[in-house]
Amino acid sequence: MAYAGPVRPTDNAAVVWRPVPAGAARITGGPLAARQRNNRTAAIPAGLKQLHEAKNIHNLEVAAGRASGEPIGPIFADSDVHKWLEAAAWEYGREADESLLDDLLALTELLAAAQAEDGYLDSVVQLRHDERYSELHMSHEHYCAGHLIQAAVAYSRTTGRTELLDVARRVADHLVATFGPDRNPALDGHPVIEMALVELYRETGERAYLDLAKHFVDTRGRATITGGREVAYYSDRVPVREATTVEGHSVRAVYLAAGAADVAAETGDAELLAALETQYDSMARQKQYITGGLGSRWDGEAFGDPYELPNDRAYAETCAAIGGVQWAWRMLLATGKASYADQIERMLYNGILSGVSLAGTEYFYVNTLHLRDGFTPDHDRNPGRGRVGWFACACCPPNVMRTFSSLEGYLASTDADGLQLHQYVPGRIEAGELEVSVETEYPWQGTIAVTVDAAPAGETAISLRVPEWADGATLRTIPQAEPGEAQGSSTGSGPEAVAPGGYATVRRSWRPGDRLVLELPIKPRLTRADSRVDADRGCLAIERGPLVYALEQVDQPDGVKIDDLRLDPTGEITEEVRPDLLGGIVVLHARGGVVRHDDSAPPRHDHDHQPDPAAEPVELTAVPYHLWAHRGAEPMRVWIPLL
Amino acid sequence: MAYAGPVRPTDNAAVVWRPVPAGAARITGGPLAARQRNNRTAAIPAGLKQLHEAKNIHNLEVAAGRASGEPIGPIFADSDVHKWLEAAAWEYGREADESLLDDLLALTELLAAAQAEDGYLDSVVQLRHDERYSELHMSHEHYCAGHLIQAAVAYSRTTGRTELLDVARRVADHLVATFGPDRNPALDGHPVIEMALVELYRETGERAYLDLAKHFVDTRGRATITGGREVAYYSDRVPVREATTVEGHSVRAVYLAAGAADVAAETGDAELLAALETQYDSMARQKQYITGGLGSRWDGEAFGDPYELPNDRAYAETCAAIGGVQWAWRMLLATGKASYADQIERMLYNGILSGVSLAGTEYFYVNTLHLRDGFTPDHDRNPGRGRVGWFACACCPPNVMRTFSSLEGYLASTDADGLQLHQYVPGRIEAGELEVSVETEYPWQGTIAVTVDAAPAGETAISLRVPEWADGATLRTIPQAEPGEAQGSSTGSGPEAVAPGGYATVRRSWRPGDRLVLELPIKPRLTRADSRVDADRGCLAIERGPLVYALEQVDQPDGVKIDDLRLDPTGEITEEVRPDLLGGIVVLHARGGVVRHDDSAPPRHDHDHQPDPAAEPVELTAVPYHLWAHRGAEPMRVWIPLL
Repeated sequence: MAYAGPVRPTDNAAVVWRPVPAGAARITGGPLAARQRNNRTAAIPAGLKQLHEAKNIHNLEVAAGRASGEPIGPIFADSDVHKWLEAAAWEYGREADESLLDDLLALTELLAAAQAEDGYLDSVVQLRHDERYSELHMSHEHYCAGHLIQAAVAYSRTTGRTELLDVARRVADHLVATFGPDRNPALDGHPVIEMALVELYRETGERAYLDLAKHFVDTRGRATITGGREVAYYSDRVPVREATTVEGHSVRAVYLAAGAADVAAETGDAELLAALETQYDSMARQKQYITGGLGSRWDGEAFGDPYELPNDRAYAETCAAIGGVQWAWRMLLATGKASYADQIERMLYNGILSGVSLAGTEYFYVNTLHLRDGFTPDHDRNPGRGRVGWFACACCPPNVMRTFSSLEGYLASTDADGLQLHQYVPGRIEAGELEVSVETEYPWQGTIAVTVDAAPAGETAISLRVPEWADGATLRTIPQAEPGEAQGSSTGSGPEAVAPGGYATVRRSWRPGDRLVLELPIKPRLTRADSRVDADRGCLAIERGPLVYALEQVDQPDGVKIDDLRLDPTGEITEEVRPDLLGGIVVLHARGGVVRHDDSAPPRHDHDHQPDPAAEPVELTAVPYHLWAHRGAEPMRVWIPLL
Repeated sequence: MAYAGPVRPTDNAAVVWRPVPAGAARITGGPLAARQRNNRTAAIPAGLKQLHEAKNIHNLEVAAGRASGEPIGPIFADSDVHKWLEAAAWEYGREADESLLDDLLALTELLAAAQAEDGYLDSVVQLRHDERYSELHMSHEHYCAGHLIQAAVAYSRTTGRTELLDVARRVADHLVATFGPDRNPALDGHPVIEMALVELYRETGERAYLDLAKHFVDTRGRATITGGREVAYYSDRVPVREATTVEGHSVRAVYLAAGAADVAAETGDAELLAALETQYDSMARQKQYITGGLGSRWDGEAFGDPYELPNDRAYAETCAAIGGVQWAWRMLLATGKASYADQIERMLYNGILSGVSLAGTEYFYVNTLHLRDGFTPDHDRNPGRGRVGWFACACCPPNVMRTFSSLEGYLASTDADGLQLHQYVPGRIEAGELEVSVETEYPWQGTIAVTVDAAPAGETAISLRVPEWADGATLRTIPQAEPGEAQGSSTGSGPEAVAPGGYATVRRSWRPGDRLVLELPIKPRLTRADSRVDADRGCLAIERGPLVYALEQVDQPDGVKIDDLRLDPTGEITEEVRPDLLGGIVVLHARGGVVRHDDSAPPRHDHDHQPDPAAEPVELTAVPYHLWAHRGAEPMRVWIPLL
């Protein structure tokens, strides 16, 4: 069943590629399928239970007149219900299920009952009897509306029904009547409404929604969001089309940018798109962790200054990486540049997967790259407490749920010329008359075999992303043998080198059974940071394929502290396949040393330290970063100082 | 005129040294005298104006029934008035002035009028009609009381009058009647009351004040401060005598520790003192910047984990360094260990002086060690905005004022054996029958000449601190010539080597005119950080004497960015005396290079960077860190990456 995924550009949109409908893509195996399975069977049911227990749903029941009491939880409590609804809607699209639909319908009916006559819907504000929009810098009223709209769009796309869309349209019509040029000029402190309104425009054809989204993008960055934090926090210091970087609260910044990219696509605004390219480039080069993590400051959950990327205090909120994927996907469609697909891979496999346990029901809010020896678990978001089932500010869990539920929407795209494969998973992709299946053990192994199952007449291009790290990648085209012909003979090719950092494209008249085999060189590599990142100076990180690796305390020799370890960059890194560990992984071993500090020596209060004593040889053991803290949350580090 | 300074141990206190009365010490020249002069003539008058404009005094007027209106400002608004009062009181002791006394009396009379019948006094809580102590985790009611008591003790010591002490005693008696064993067990989220109550006990002899301070110290660290942040923030996670390090909000932590040191001294509690030594050692080795700055996190204004010392996001609040001096001074008196005097010097000359402009009227709240190229000035405390006249949370300015006004109290101490000089300034010290004067151009030059002006009969010891950095220090004893004898002949000594990190002591029967000449080797030196400080890896810092140096943008060659500079550690560092610059300083020049990054090159989104291009030779210019941002707040750094 082909239904549109999270982004559906209109026919007039200025994009070079269009998403393959989410329902036309299937992930049939590998670690992402396992994640999706647990998301569906464990996380989403547990999430609904948490929304009841944390009283988010109770608030709506009170607003609907079906219960009594005070509003409970943060002012944006409704948004977590909406994100859960979006996840459930995508999940229904992945596989129809009556009980899932019953939950969707019941919550939709509750939302409709809680909605005010004029379309306004925000249970906490309604129950507090606050003046609407009087505290929009922190009230999250547009933010809640945005998440409701996104849920409704997903619901419409996967069920073909309109109940939730009707609620969302009444909300959106109320916003259109209330905000915009010559009406209330206020902006919500937390973007997301921009993306939501463009998608609602796409779903309904109602131009007013796009116009309002454009208004919100155009008027932001003029220091009008006052009364709370400094304007930089809200991405309100520099107009969107003048900004050259991202700043402030990282989730807000990337949600805004993703919404601006939607506006640029639907209005054909090349200037805005160019500004967003500049901003993305600045983010990726100066303000992003190797894990794809975004936001280096706990204070304000914010982007730092250029190259301010402390590992121990990385914030790298799970939601920020999710927003980063949303932004990158829109940039990929608009520009066709492989770097954005590389970015999605980096964020997905490291910054997002790290945010949720293999079981699917425990979450990190903060995805640090370094937990120090002797850390104090001083905060409910401190990674030293391990992943937890829910948060007082529970934005991340349902955000993970909706991401896994809509993951098929980010795998592939099409244009008039053919199909582009961006992410490699075992599965099947339909793109019009072209149907392909993919076999791979990615990300553990680098062979990606694409088989054509059906093909249109005439030439069609199939493009495979060659990641930027994949020096030495090769591609073979193996036509299905004609009757009586050996496969791969006359018209096929031997392995041909393909350049990393782009797409390898084969254009031909495909026949069922034709195959493409991409070989990516998945082997350990050492990665160097920009020398302006002080926290990484004198260190290297270990990567293998798309995965960043980390040293966890549990894997090192007894009595050896994580922060005393040193890496020998000249040593060979060996691989060990461990099917028994963490769902089946490749463990890496590296040559290194341990520096044994004599902390019992008299203190040197004048801060001048001797060089370290000679390191004793030791073998370092590294596991994929995103799986750390599954065996206790003990000290860990990604960037390893050199011997 | 000899009056007691900020700490006056009782005769029974378990201390090895006792402070020289503040009024018996004089700073007669040098940079600290200039600071004191501007503090008195500019900062203190401007501070009173700010307290009127920010409405702190207005709140008290309303509480006194002399004005009407709502309370304005933070809940701890009274405390800034109290700290100003303390500064003015010490200032009155330094030099009596009728208009200063008039201001003191007028504010005292206002406080008395605002005070409730039962002694309670907190204008904001009174005006809000909050239930007293119902929100003690954040209401700062004990904190305000503590600062009031500290002001009253200063007032009593310098004026010999009781008006303000009477107000404070009524506050303290109310606290004694309300809190303690078998009464209200609650603790204030922000310590300071502990120090204050011990000092009030010292001033009045009322044992109940000491008992209540001991109760607050003994019951802290049992996770009873709930309803706000995590308990670590409040130093309430681990009992004070079990803690092995400092954690949480740095000002709170060091104020608590200083108060605990007072309790330990007055109760003879060796176990508590030992715990505080362990905590101080952990702080100095693992959680303190080279500038003496304390607190590495903006979030929670807190200490970080061990060796978590980012330079760009150093918080290093001015108040925290002030609290650090208060704690170190108490530890010095209790233990006689020179390292605590070294600590005071480091914090004073770097972490505190940096917090206030040479003019005295502009302040840093946050004393960063690194302002990055391309920083966003995103917060009213962001050092990129430069020092400012006042803050919404104005704790630092009056804290600086009271520190300068009481600075003489931290210079010297005595015991039965004689006199100890801890800090070197041109000035005079009286210690009973022993009177000495000091001539020096410290911290610019290392010659410290101590002349005996009067001496008791019999042998007396004079001890001079030899800082831990002062390898190669020497001491000469030069007796006054007998009539007809050449000075320094028979009984004197040539220069003798003295060991750094302790005290050089000369015991003899002193005669007026006898001299001691200490030569400290003040020359540039390169300092290495503990290798576990990730932010400093591959870097060195430049120090000279007690001063930490920094590279400021304004002093580097045109077109060279701070973060592109590299230091050649093998190069000679040369000195340039600049009487014309920043009040007269020694500028340092070092050999180095500049790495010119090609930021226009295509982005490498996969995060793997090439080694830097070869550095071009360049001369680096460094100025004393504490004077940075007097010529604009442009990029700056203390720790310099090596070539």
